[in-house]
Formats: sequence, structure tokens, C-alpha cells
Amino acid sequence: MTHDAIEVISAKRDRQALTDSQIDWVIDAYTRGDVADEQMSALAMAILLNGMDLREISRWTDAMIASGERMDFSSLSRPTADKHSTGGVGDKITLPLAPLVAACGVAVPQLSGRGLGHTGGTLDKLEAIPGWRAALSNDEMLAQLEDVGAVICAAGDGLAPADKKLYALRDVTGTVEAIPLIASSIMSKKIAEGTGALVLDVKVGTGAFMKDLDRARELAETMVGLGNAAGVHTVALLTDMSTPLGLTAGNAVEVAESVEVLAGGGPADVVELTLALAREMLAGAGVTDVDPADKLADGSAMDAWKAMVRAQGGDPDATLPTARESHVVTAPATGTLTRLDAMAVGLAAWRLGAGRARKEDPVQAGAGVVWHARPGDEVTEGQPLLTLLTDEPERFERALDSLEGGYDVGDAASYTPTDLVLDRIS
Amino acid sequence: MTHDAIEVISAKRDRQALTDSQIDWVIDAYTRGDVADEQMSALAMAILLNGMDLREISRWTDAMIASGERMDFSSLSRPTADKHSTGGVGDKITLPLAPLVAACGVAVPQLSGRGLGHTGGTLDKLEAIPGWRAALSNDEMLAQLEDVGAVICAAGDGLAPADKKLYALRDVTGTVEAIPLIASSIMSKKIAEGTGALVLDVKVGTGAFMKDLDRARELAETMVGLGNAAGVHTVALLTDMSTPLGLTAGNAVEVAESVEVLAGGGPADVVELTLALAREMLAGAGVTDVDPADKLADGSAMDAWKAMVRAQGGDPDATLPTARESHVVTAPATGTLTRLDAMAVGLAAWRLGAGRARKEDPVQAGAGVVWHARPGDEVTEGQPLLTLLTDEPERFERALDSLEGGYDVGDAASYTPTDLVLDRIS
Repeated sequence: MTHDAIEVISAKRDRQALTDSQIDWVIDAYTRGDVADEQMSALAMAILLNGMDLREISRWTDAMIASGERMDFSSLSRPTADKHSTGGVGDKITLPLAPLVAACGVAVPQLSGRGLGHTGGTLDKLEAIPGWRAALSNDEMLAQLEDVGAVICAAGDGLAPADKKLYALRDVTGTVEAIPLIASSIMSKKIAEGTGALVLDVKVGTGAFMKDLDRARELAETMVGLGNAAGVHTVALLTDMSTPLGLTAGNAVEVAESVEVLAGGGPADVVELTLALAREMLAGAGVTDVDPADKLADGSAMDAWKAMVRAQGGDPDATLPTARESHVVTAPATGTLTRLDAMAVGLAAWRLGAGRARKEDPVQAGAGVVWHARPGDEVTEGQPLLTLLTDEPERFERALDSLEGGYDVGDAASYTPTDLVLDRIS
Repeated sequence: MTHDAIEVISAKRDRQALTDSQIDWVIDAYTRGDVADEQMSALAMAILLNGMDLREISRWTDAMIASGERMDFSSLSRPTADKHSTGGVGDKITLPLAPLVAACGVAVPQLSGRGLGHTGGTLDKLEAIPGWRAALSNDEMLAQLEDVGAVICAAGDGLAPADKKLYALRDVTGTVEAIPLIASSIMSKKIAEGTGALVLDVKVGTGAFMKDLDRARELAETMVGLGNAAGVHTVALLTDMSTPLGLTAGNAVEVAESVEVLAGGGPADVVELTLALAREMLAGAGVTDVDPADKLADGSAMDAWKAMVRAQGGDPDATLPTARESHVVTAPATGTLTRLDAMAVGLAAWRLGAGRARKEDPVQAGAGVVWHARPGDEVTEGQPLLTLLTDEPERFERALDSLEGGYDVGDAASYTPTDLVLDRIS
């Protein structure tokens, strides 16, 4: 059935539910260029302000999937599971998680994009490893999944091209913040990617896109509904992002921290979240007789990591790039670090050159922030609290500005520990 | 102060009032092309759904005026007054009104656009007169206002170019129906046009853009507020548009009906509304000692009409074009015509070729609908009720479809007369 753009826009503007036929038409026509950007952005704003019900979001997601190719992993000898994080500061979890789950016998086809966030995305982080390349053909990906069990690579242009076009449009029209559009954007790519199970890490807090638990829960419930309706075993964890994860935010520094975790060490929170997500992925893939903690302890997760890096041209034993300049921020008093704000740290890392402002910008592999205490730790006045890293020392000043008011040192009594995993949605 | 598009869009999306500085910036940047169409349409949808307060609308209007030139009639020897109608079926009032008010000593600078409605706009109607031309230079306009006292011509591109660009965008993005944007669009052009007084004819009913009295009143109050704030003496009449005006809808047929009014005859409702609007324009211009009814009776309004048409190259005595084909619809029963729906008649006229679907389409000068009774009139079964006119007989079928259910013949008791002027806002 044919429709026209004004009819579809007006229906949503007037708070009507869009029909399946209207949704199929508008996504297809937008992908083909028959619906103009200025029409789609008006529709996106109407969706943002007037909402979509689950039937509409599900159809919208299906239409975006139908705009491109679908991958098929049914030829693999093992089940598949993937993870998606809505993004947070110091969130390097994919790096240890993918080889860990592969070591447990489940294949992880992680197709990633480039980040526009505080640090680069997962691909940018891995590109800090000399020789590593993000682009793989579908055949290379399948072969690596069979041989190594884990792939982290760039999503090809063939997957949900409607989403790619719509995401770029939302980015410049103030329409990113619509839960139906966020949910369908993430899930269209993950469903088209063909994973059998999916775990969503929905971040909540100052350093996350979702600042409050209710909206994060709404997003998680929407995505879990979409995934399960499409036959992907989907679970979401709501996790805290008021404090940055681990002790590093950047690219090379996060790779180094991930390798520590794979070596059986690393910050407790990174280990905790990696294991929680790994258990969900394994359960979703039907593997219940393996404890991923054992695979960290026995070195098999590290072996899978090295194999995964090598398969994509990287040298897992090479020295990682370091920033040319560093600046140390010392503790202002003796006491307990009662707060370290994820947003402040993220902004500092970004201003140091770890992230990009525009799609076409490069990121600095060595730039970032390393902190030497986590909330709850005792610190002594004058000890190093944070180290800022960049190749361009003129960046220190604005990075320091963003850390202003971003941490507190006080009485142990005024520190309240928070749970890392806040809720589970299935 | 400089802003960016996402900041302005996000503010309105999040239900904040835009600052003066944001409004000035976004209108200027959009006119220059620094804010893209897809950004402006997202903002327009956010304004449509979240509204603007009177301060914002007023600043928005000022910014659109500032995007172009302002006309200045202060050199004229007489005061100026103009009229704007939000548009209805059979609304030819501008044609007799402008020369009538001129005959009363007030200059009427009526700058019009092309209609996208059921029939052509005022310019299309006048173009049915052989030789008449819509385009005048500013100097020609001033000279004609001084000599004849009335000009109906095409608005130049220099007046509120931001509005021109924004209106074209709203037209294709489902964002026409925003009262703040409708009000600022109309008033920016009227204020820039430089008229001293303005009367707004805000139509309400099936054949009008505003279907209900509350929204029409809101629009009228907004526009009256904007006009008076800008120093233009502004009054609005809310008038009924559930029944079409007069006995004709089309282009040449409406010119002919207007000439009847100027000759002292014509349908009672057209005469009533013409006189009501004329009295408001005269009062707004400070002329209180002339009764416009006298100027219809003594032929001076007709003289002004002929002078106005001649000044723009038209021959007021030439035979008007007629349609090549006609089709008569007869009364289905004997009784009282209790209802004649403006929307049905308007759609029929449009389908016969009197209006245009796209800006670049031509209109048929002779096409339209003539009705031979008005609600309240007695009709006899089989008598001609409506005559459909077009050059293209294949258009009759769809025009007849649109008249289906568009009129009722019944008991005199079931007819309730309605007032033509429903309210006055000043």
C-alpha cells in the first residue's frame, strides 16, 4: 500500500498509532530517498514527543532490518551470544567479555560502530593495538567465529542501512533521545546481526545517556520485548554509571586494563560486571555447565583474546601506545574518596583527545584518564589521585576544568557504596 | 550571541521557552542556510506540539520581518488599511472590499500569495480578467496607492524571506497546523508590508483551516496581539465557513459575483461581510464619517474597482473566460435547502480545476461551482441546485463524488440559520 509522508507525519503528530503499512512504507521510502530528511526529522520529533506503542516499535524495527541484509550463523558448530552496552565512561567490558565467553564455548559476533562518546568506541580502543584491523568480510567473520569463537569488528554498511541514515539524521536534529528510536536502532542492528542470544547492559547515571532509573528501565524493557519477539533470547542488566568503570578511561589504557582482567587480575568492578554479563550470555545461549570465572583463572580466556587479536592482524604482545604528556592531579585532603563522577571523568578524557567530536575526527590512542583510587578507598593529601594523558599538553587546562567538582574526599561515614548491577529485566 | 541548532531544538523539545537570542539566531541562520531544513522541521514539530508563549511568537515574528525589507507608506496622503482572510470556500471578499475601502478614502495595499486551496488565491481570481497582471514594482505600487487607492498584487520576494522558506518547509513536513507558526507567518508579512491598520477575517467551519471556534479564537487573539504590539491597529472577526460564501466558488465566477456586489447587488452574505470588514478597516484607519454602504450605492466603489483593474493592465469591461463544459446537479426533493457544506463545495471546485495541487500547477480560469440556492432557500425537486464548470469533462465524476452527502433538502423546521460574524477580537 502506498502512503505519503505528510499523512504519516500528521498521524503521529495527532497522537495516532502508525499502521504497519505506514511504518513499512515510510522506512522503505526514506531509505530510497523518497521521503526527505526534513520529513523524517519532523516525524522523529513527533515520535519523540508523542511516543510509539510496542507494536509500532516492533514493526519499525522489522522495517529497518528489512532495509538491509541479515546475517546467518546457523552454520556454526556452537551457539551465539552478543552483548550491547548503551555506553558509559571506562566501559571496556566488551574487550575481556568476548574472548571470555568464546573460551566458554559460545561464539560472540560483536559488530560495533565508532563511538561519538567520551572515549572512542570499542573499535577505537582495539585499534590502539598495533596491526589490529576492524574491517572483516562476512566470510572472514564466519571463519573467525568458527576458529576463535569471538569477533569484534566494524558493522558493514549492509546491516539496517535505514538505521544508519536515520541515526545520522537524529544526531543533528535533537531527536536522539526518543526511547522508541533508541530501542529500534540498537535492536534492528543486533537482530539483523543474527545472534541467538543477547545481553543488554543499560547504563544509568551521570556518565550514561540515561540519567534516571525509570527511563533506563523503560528502554531496557522495550529492547528486551523487541529482542524476544524477534526470536533472540534477550536479557538486560541495568548497571550503575554514576562512577566510571575500573581505573581507566581512554583507548590504550582501557586495553591494558582489559588484559589485566583476562590475566586474572584487574579492578573488582570490571571483573564483577564482566562475569555477570558472561553468565547471562552463556545462559541465553543454553550453556549452563561452565563457570566463566574458571576461564579467567585458567588462562583460556587470555588465550582466546590473543587468538582473536591475532586473527585480525594485531599483535597481542606488542607494547601499547602511550601519551606523550601526562599531568597528575593530587588528592586535596586525607580521607575517603566518597565520589568520583563519571560525567566529569568522561568529559576530561574526551577533552584530552580520547574521544571525537565529529565522525571524521581521529582519536588519540594514548589519551585518557587513569585514576588511582575508587570511591570508598582511603587517600592521603598530596598523593596522586588522577593522571591525565594526552599528546597535546594544551588540552590539560580544559580537561582540568571538567574535573572541577567531579570528586569529593571526606569522612568514611559519608560514603555510601552503591550496587553495580541495579536490576535485571528479562 | 551565537547558538547551535541542536541546542535550540532541544530547548523547545524539552518544553522550555526559547530566548530572544535563540529565536533571532535560528531564524537568521535558517535564512542564511546555516540551519538545515531537517533541523528547522524538527524545531517546527517541537513548536507545534509544545507551543510558544506570546513573547516567543512576537520575537519569532520580528525575526522573520528582520530577515527582509519593510515597506513604508508614510509618504501617502491617506491612511492605509489591509485585510487578511485565513481562507474559505467562495471567499472573494478582497475583490469588492479593496476598491470599496479605497472609495472611502483609505488606501489598501493588499499583497497576496498564490493559493494552494480549493480555488486559486486572490491573484488567480484576478488573473481571470484579460490583461490583468499581478506583479508590480514597489514604485508602481506606491503610485497606484496614491492615484487609485487600492492595489492587489503579488508580494515580492523581499518581504519576510524567512517566512517564505519556512512556509514551503512546513507545507511538506506536516507542520502547517501550529498556531504560533501560522500567526507569525501571516503577521510577519502584514507587518513588513507596512499597513497602518489590519482586519483579520478568521474563518471557522468545515470549509476553513480552523474547524472549531476555540482554535480560531486562539489564532485570532494571537494575531491581534502581534499586530497591536507592532504598532498596527489590528482587529479580527471570526466568521462562519461551514457554508460557502455567496453563490460561486472558482476564479472567473467569483470575479463576476464581486462585480455584482460593486454594482450594488450580489448575494446578501457577501455584501454583509464586505461591509463589516470595510467598517473595521475604516475605523482602524481613523475614518469614521463615511458609510461604505453609500459607496456601493453611488457607484464610487465600482469606479475604484475599474481604476484598480485598469492600473494593472486589466480590462474591467472584457468578457470573463467561461468553462467549456458544465454539468447540472438538480435538487433531489422539494423542501428547504437545510445545509450546503463548504468543504464539499470546495473540494468539488478543486477537483474541477479551479485550484492547484502543487505550486507550479496552473488553475483553470473558468472552472468552479455555482449554486442556485443558499441554506434556508426553498427548492423544488428537479430544479438546478449546483452547476459544475470545467474545461475537462473527465473531472465531473470525482467532483460529483465530493458533493455526495454535502447538502440536505428537508423541512423548513430543521433549518437553523447561523450568524455570519461569530465574534470580534480586538
